[in-house]
Amino acid sequence: MPRFALKIEYDGRPFAGWQAQADQPSVQGTVEAALARLDAGFAAGARIAAAGRTDAGVHATGQVAHADLVRDWDPARLCEALNFHLRPAPIAVLAAARTGDDFHARFSAVQRRYLFRLIARRAPMTHLRGLVWQVRNTLDADAMRQGAAQLIGHHDFTTFRSSICQARSPLKTLDDIAIDEVAIPHGREYRFSLTARSFLHNQVRSIVGTLERVGAGAWPPERVGTALAARDRAACGPVCKPHGLYLTGVGYPEDPFAT
Amino acid sequence: MPRFALKIEYDGRPFAGWQAQADQPSVQGTVEAALARLDAGFAAGARIAAAGRTDAGVHATGQVAHADLVRDWDPARLCEALNFHLRPAPIAVLAAARTGDDFHARFSAVQRRYLFRLIARRAPMTHLRGLVWQVRNTLDADAMRQGAAQLIGHHDFTTFRSSICQARSPLKTLDDIAIDEVAIPHGREYRFSLTARSFLHNQVRSIVGTLERVGAGAWPPERVGTALAARDRAACGPVCKPHGLYLTGVGYPEDPFAT
Repeated sequence: MPRFALKIEYDGRPFAGWQAQADQPSVQGTVEAALARLDAGFAAGARIAAAGRTDAGVHATGQVAHADLVRDWDPARLCEALNFHLRPAPIAVLAAARTGDDFHARFSAVQRRYLFRLIARRAPMTHLRGLVWQVRNTLDADAMRQGAAQLIGHHDFTTFRSSICQARSPLKTLDDIAIDEVAIPHGREYRFSLTARSFLHNQVRSIVGTLERVGAGAWPPERVGTALAARDRAACGPVCKPHGLYLTGVGYPEDPFAT
Repeated sequence: MPRFALKIEYDGRPFAGWQAQADQPSVQGTVEAALARLDAGFAAGARIAAAGRTDAGVHATGQVAHADLVRDWDPARLCEALNFHLRPAPIAVLAAARTGDDFHARFSAVQRRYLFRLIARRAPMTHLRGLVWQVRNTLDADAMRQGAAQLIGHHDFTTFRSSICQARSPLKTLDDIAIDEVAIPHGREYRFSLTARSFLHNQVRSIVGTLERVGAGAWPPERVGTALAARDRAACGPVCKPHGLYLTGVGYPEDPFAT
């Protein structure tokens, strides 16, 4: 059966997360239901696999999943047909591509990119409600960058992983945390861009929640390194809300969407 | 009674527009209901006046209104109290300022600034649904700029005004239309920024709808000037959806929020 990679964007607000669940709306379940409208295999219960199993409320602009279909679809037509059947769910297939049978959206991935949008503003959000995490006071971006620098590299991230994380090892290599500060009307936006081969459960939210404490002046930047070295979940800052988190891209040895 | 200017941001999606209506949710009605929670005058039916009476579905990031209150509030506390009582409506008071009695949000205004967000992308929108107008095919920004240039200056804008427009004269001076093109994943965004002392009803949407035809190649840029010269509503291109429109700012001889 021909295998297809799908690049998927979604608004996480109405979903209990990526993963299909019996009694709650999920992104995976919604995409599979759309696939079932146009493919006999999915009508009979076939499943898709994704690079990142995002939590409830978490968004994506570049999730990647793969699906084995009965028919050898033209990728552009597959995109159109899926988007038609996905309506009115806030999920869009941005691109589809035919891949080899050895491509696996999750296991072939060599890089995940996440964006976290944090807004500091006194007035509540309107258009961006549920799309960003909001705090009231302006943060010190340089202090957050100093704190973030201590997390780059290969480390035991036990402090920054959820207690229910299922990864076998807490050792991960964090390649980069870039923090961009943007002026918005009557506030500031801080955009955290994190890159790694893979992340532990809640790792990004644990890191951003901790760096916010640094930016607010409640933690000196050095405490981030101390917390990391403690290898103790209790040393972590508060884990922040899921609403600001976006899976923005997945890297593969060969980009399946390149052509 | 002390007069206050309020800078207001709102998501237009759930509202039938700015103006209070008997049986539909309006931004004005919602702000007045919040004011009634903290001011006896509004509890007794006082009203606010705004610089721009935006249509159903139209957004604002810089609407300005004024209100006469019984008490001489500290502006920052007034902001906080109003935002508290506005919950959960997607309306935020960004700033409040004490003004002289001669300040009138609508009649003192000497400039209105609007932004129109138009996205060209094949896949449907997710996070931005209801916040932009979407078309499927990439547009020619330079052609749209050529078309827009023909509208700058003092003209009879009969072609670009709604047939129910209540302005006494169709003569307006359009100071500027800037068109910025931004790459987004798998698409392009075109941001139209329009500035004038005041606008006719549906003028921005009529102009953007017409320029989209130019960008799509269906109209040569010169036809915009021909349409303007016709002074005939029938010569206008299709009026575009309200969802991409934002009132971003209002100018006064002296900025009431300056300090």
